[in-house]
Amino acid sequence: MPGNSFGHAFRFTTWGESHGPEIGCVVDGVPPSIVLSEADIQFWLDRRRPGQSKFTTQRREPDTVRIVSGVFEGLTTGTPLSLVIENKDQRARDYSEIADKFRPSHADYTYTAKYGIRDYRGGGRASARETAMRVAAGAVARKVIGDGISVRGALVQIGDHSIDRSAWDWDEVERNPFWCPDVKAAEKWEEMLETVRKDGLSLGAVVEIVATGVPAGLGEPVYDKLDGDLARAMMTINAVKGVEIGAGFGVAAMTGAQNADEMRAGRDKNPVFLSNNAGGVLGGLSTGQDIIVRFAVKPTSSILKPLRTVDIKGEETEIITKGRHDPCVGIRGVPVGEAMMACVIADHTLRHRGQIGLSL
Amino acid sequence: MPGNSFGHAFRFTTWGESHGPEIGCVVDGVPPSIVLSEADIQFWLDRRRPGQSKFTTQRREPDTVRIVSGVFEGLTTGTPLSLVIENKDQRARDYSEIADKFRPSHADYTYTAKYGIRDYRGGGRASARETAMRVAAGAVARKVIGDGISVRGALVQIGDHSIDRSAWDWDEVERNPFWCPDVKAAEKWEEMLETVRKDGLSLGAVVEIVATGVPAGLGEPVYDKLDGDLARAMMTINAVKGVEIGAGFGVAAMTGAQNADEMRAGRDKNPVFLSNNAGGVLGGLSTGQDIIVRFAVKPTSSILKPLRTVDIKGEETEIITKGRHDPCVGIRGVPVGEAMMACVIADHTLRHRGQIGLSL
Amino acid sequence: MPGNSFGHAFRFTTWGESHGPEIGCVVDGVPPSIVLSEADIQFWLDRRRPGQSKFTTQRREPDTVRIVSGVFEGLTTGTPLSLVIENKDQRARDYSEIADKFRPSHADYTYTAKYGIRDYRGGGRASARETAMRVAAGAVARKVIGDGISVRGALVQIGDHSIDRSAWDWDEVERNPFWCPDVKAAEKWEEMLETVRKDGLSLGAVVEIVATGVPAGLGEPVYDKLDGDLARAMMTINAVKGVEIGAGFGVAAMTGAQNADEMRAGRDKNPVFLSNNAGGVLGGLSTGQDIIVRFAVKPTSSILKPLRTVDIKGEETEIITKGRHDPCVGIRGVPVGEAMMACVIADHTLRHRGQIGLSL
Amino acid sequence: MPGNSFGHAFRFTTWGESHGPEIGCVVDGVPPSIVLSEADIQFWLDRRRPGQSKFTTQRREPDTVRIVSGVFEGLTTGTPLSLVIENKDQRARDYSEIADKFRPSHADYTYTAKYGIRDYRGGGRASARETAMRVAAGAVARKVIGDGISVRGALVQIGDHSIDRSAWDWDEVERNPFWCPDVKAAEKWEEMLETVRKDGLSLGAVVEIVATGVPAGLGEPVYDKLDGDLARAMMTINAVKGVEIGAGFGVAAMTGAQNADEMRAGRDKNPVFLSNNAGGVLGGLSTGQDIIVRFAVKPTSSILKPLRTVDIKGEETEIITKGRHDPCVGIRGVPVGEAMMACVIADHTLRHRGQIGLSL
Repeated sequence: MPGNSFGHAFRFTTWGESHGPEIGCVVDGVPPSIVLSEADIQFWLDRRRPGQSKFTTQRREPDTVRIVSGVFEGLTTGTPLSLVIENKDQRARDYSEIADKFRPSHADYTYTAKYGIRDYRGGGRASARETAMRVAAGAVARKVIGDGISVRGALVQIGDHSIDRSAWDWDEVERNPFWCPDVKAAEKWEEMLETVRKDGLSLGAVVEIVATGVPAGLGEPVYDKLDGDLARAMMTINAVKGVEIGAGFGVAAMTGAQNADEMRAGRDKNPVFLSNNAGGVLGGLSTGQDIIVRFAVKPTSSILKPLRTVDIKGEETEIITKGRHDPCVGIRGVPVGEAMMACVIADHTLRHRGQIGLSL
Repeated sequence: MPGNSFGHAFRFTTWGESHGPEIGCVVDGVPPSIVLSEADIQFWLDRRRPGQSKFTTQRREPDTVRIVSGVFEGLTTGTPLSLVIENKDQRARDYSEIADKFRPSHADYTYTAKYGIRDYRGGGRASARETAMRVAAGAVARKVIGDGISVRGALVQIGDHSIDRSAWDWDEVERNPFWCPDVKAAEKWEEMLETVRKDGLSLGAVVEIVATGVPAGLGEPVYDKLDGDLARAMMTINAVKGVEIGAGFGVAAMTGAQNADEMRAGRDKNPVFLSNNAGGVLGGLSTGQDIIVRFAVKPTSSILKPLRTVDIKGEETEIITKGRHDPCVGIRGVPVGEAMMACVIADHTLRHRGQIGLSL
Repeated sequence: MPGNSFGHAFRFTTWGESHGPEIGCVVDGVPPSIVLSEADIQFWLDRRRPGQSKFTTQRREPDTVRIVSGVFEGLTTGTPLSLVIENKDQRARDYSEIADKFRPSHADYTYTAKYGIRDYRGGGRASARETAMRVAAGAVARKVIGDGISVRGALVQIGDHSIDRSAWDWDEVERNPFWCPDVKAAEKWEEMLETVRKDGLSLGAVVEIVATGVPAGLGEPVYDKLDGDLARAMMTINAVKGVEIGAGFGVAAMTGAQNADEMRAGRDKNPVFLSNNAGGVLGGLSTGQDIIVRFAVKPTSSILKPLRTVDIKGEETEIITKGRHDPCVGIRGVPVGEAMMACVIADHTLRHRGQIGLSL
Repeated sequence: MPGNSFGHAFRFTTWGESHGPEIGCVVDGVPPSIVLSEADIQFWLDRRRPGQSKFTTQRREPDTVRIVSGVFEGLTTGTPLSLVIENKDQRARDYSEIADKFRPSHADYTYTAKYGIRDYRGGGRASARETAMRVAAGAVARKVIGDGISVRGALVQIGDHSIDRSAWDWDEVERNPFWCPDVKAAEKWEEMLETVRKDGLSLGAVVEIVATGVPAGLGEPVYDKLDGDLARAMMTINAVKGVEIGAGFGVAAMTGAQNADEMRAGRDKNPVFLSNNAGGVLGGLSTGQDIIVRFAVKPTSSILKPLRTVDIKGEETEIITKGRHDPCVGIRGVPVGEAMMACVIADHTLRHRGQIGLSL
């Protein structure tokens, strides 16, 4: 019932606050005898790590993960993994002002409304710092689902500027600080963000996550549908305000004939689809095509411009965020979205195997 | 673990197939001593009932609900409600062709891929018939959350034609067969759908659900966030391909200054927000503003136009849907979306009360 | 969170009251393509059915089960089973007195204390009538675990008279109305219960359930241990006040040397145990030996002797139960205990397969 | 679905192995603004700590707990508590022999059968070391339920020697190393265990846990009954083989008249019960009387006497446990049983409040 766990068969529970001594997660349900080392997880954490370019927060965290339980002589034992990261760069002094003022578009007011108390240092539990543990859990999930399934993400829009999808190049994603698959869009974004960064402002973004190699039939209708779980997974990432699968909101303007993904006979028993408006999910179950999810990330309101707000006494005031800025928090959403996709697929793989018994 | 339940504290489990003798649900966790009659539920079922206009499926179902347990002398007892509806208009003959062919954009292929077997009559378990039980559960949820919270829905787009939001009139929603809040859009849609219906084709749509009166602080961070649960709730409705909260995908093109919902002092301790880009949710918790969710519903591919597909033997074939058509399945999504919103709020109300102990 | 469901991967939810129109359950997570008919379930319901001898309640219920969903053309589809039994012999008039008085040792007072309201007719939701649905779910569970695993039960004690374990004969269990494996004990019990029945009194009993053929390794440490789940499963059966595994409470008086189940090499890789004090469970996981569970069932306090109690206004009064008596409710506990054991094993079989992936 | 969590609304998840660097737990669902310090938890851990008398294991562990998250400025925040204890006295060399041999009556064989791999050092995950985290979670649970409810435990039997219940003195429990409420039994036990300890042997025991002050109506029928959850809670403690409530197995030999707890009018609306055979639970709900649970703990088979067993290759061998012995592991079961009782009550208190809304 409490809200800090995700997944059913592959299940992780995160804990920790932005400025506590450590953050961590417990990953339960991991199959035994999987080769797993801290380096396997560190690889993915390093991709998410803040402070790697001038376009993400300048908080300096090595984000070194420790595996404290669940691995013996290099193999998972089937018992819970405890993964822990020490918070190094806490700099509590930066956040003193927000102890009393509610930052607009942050969770300051709502946490206070709910709990009557909050750890205001750096956003406390509501900080995007928590997403490091999603990435750690996602690294384990990737091990569970194996190399036959790839989960990759990219940024497809910053501000009002979208990529040219015909220019999509997965290799390019690794070459620029935006996870952008379109080399020209990356250049444009650099220019846009340079201005935004200097002005202490921020822009929103859209992230796209693609899973390739997922076999058909994954998902649990009707309330634990694969796309339902993906929607929840992505919407719970900090600052996300929308999620879509395949053609997404575009389906509204389609006719049934346009939207239908027609099928032809494939080489094996599985059909070949002539399009993928479904984004790889029909009736809540995977079709065998790429699973394609997009989500919109709002621009942070921690900006240099003064914003009107109230304080904890209900008095009107203004707030302005000096110090470390994050011109586009959506950039860091890419590795987090990948991790959540991997976790959803791992969870449904184990759940499917439980009921159906085939090794998908 | 199996997928046919929704909610934690207010929890319902649905069962039944499109052409089985009955469909039903069990609603567990309902507080005791709530006045509840079959008429209370029937009112909402009647709004969803198919066959009420020429623009939705012509399946004729009275959808008469029975409360079989959990109510004694007109009051809930705190024990499980069993709600049952008899399927009357099954017409199995209409569906004989789909026993062997996979309808594109339906769950025929994926259910077969998952289970190796499926009840092909009318879509079986994957049929939108299941949503009747969501509406029934939603009617109970409305009783749980009380009259202080209203949950209303409307259709805001059909095909490529959106409403004029400045013309929004909730009263108008009840006056046209589209749940359209804009009288002019309703006229336009009638024209559009008349053509589509005659041609045996279909269009997509966008539904908007608004909850008013929800107190601040509802939701369970960080994985059972209110918006995460809403995203899952809506995405699991048949044919939905995208969900957004508040400004939704629009946030990508905003700056942080534009997106920030600034606050001023309210009359009580709660602040007044100067905008609602957040759609009533920050950090996964309600802000006290209207909770606004939109979802996109794809056009059905059960149309008069022949579509290419394969059969269960993997042979290539075509399929064409004669008989009852549904030119815009999104219309029926309105009462279903309302019901899911009510269920999510009821669940989080009870969960919140469990941990925090205040009567929200 | 609400309490009317059991199991995780193989999960059933029951509903209904003693004197409502119907009782039922939803069984979710059943693997597809299992041959299942109403007759398969009816067989086990008939064994539990009341009114079959003068030593159990004379309520006359045919207990005819209907499968309303989840089976298509004789096979399970992997979607939820809805199982329903109509209540025929409700005789509400028998129970009029208990509307106002709290029967000692029944749930009358506690349901009122919890919910502030209760369906007093025949015990309402707290009636042992609910156990019919456990037996129905157990019949499905037997299909899931297959013929390789047998789950059998027997009564091993009535009042202060235990069976002679050296005279145990499983065939005898089917020949007397007590499920007694010792022919001489059965004769003695008949004599004892004849007296008790005529006097309108009652006796307690101990039930033993044995599962044979369960492979080693089933269970989920450390909180979902196989024996933990069995303890919960049995303790939730009406009137049960104690549960033990293997040597049970007898272990307290043993030395470590006596209690140790020593091992020798078996014909395959599995060891042969030289004793089974563990009752087939070590560390919460099955050992491959017989799983042996015993539970104590209290005597009903619905007797001809007047008992002191209070009424709903808090006034002192007496109560005496006329009409249908149940001299030993433990007798009917045997098929219910078998069913719960089968459900626990089915659940853990699917859970194990999910994480480990071997077909146990 | 994985098995390392306990509770629903008050929910904890434990991790760690006997000889890993740390063990820990995450406690989720804790109400906010509860005063909580490490000292509050340490107090209860110190009572369980091994090595405090010659009658429990000589492993030396300071068991110093750290609260790593969920507390801010001395108050719980409503977010997850992470509690961690460093393992200090690992002495891996003591356990080298058990890498290859299956210790009888331990989980060595069953873990290998399940997972195909195990951390053999000190029992790994199956070690009673895990119970330290139950005690830590229990300390938090005591804070949640408040001082109005007391949860106390005692040892009531070692070997074949039970206490004289008429001599029960709660103060005495704190004065001897056995948590024995009967001063004479404590003397007798000291004598018995002195012999057993010198001989390197072991004895079983029975623990009794009593909760006083629990209001009537706690519990969730019919599968999450209070006694069902208590049975599971206790049975999952290492080495427990039986659980009973109130008169427990004694009910079998009672008549319905003897077993009935008659009621008289109390000073407030609540009745006064004239006996407590029910052990404070009727119909799965608390009656307001003391909740009384007993459980049997087997003697450890880690003894100086050689026992026949097999090794991981299936070869026959013998095993003898030198070094640290635990003549009666039941002694350490007392604080663990108390903790589990407190956790069950805390969980049901929050669950009850969620559905019913009264502050119990």
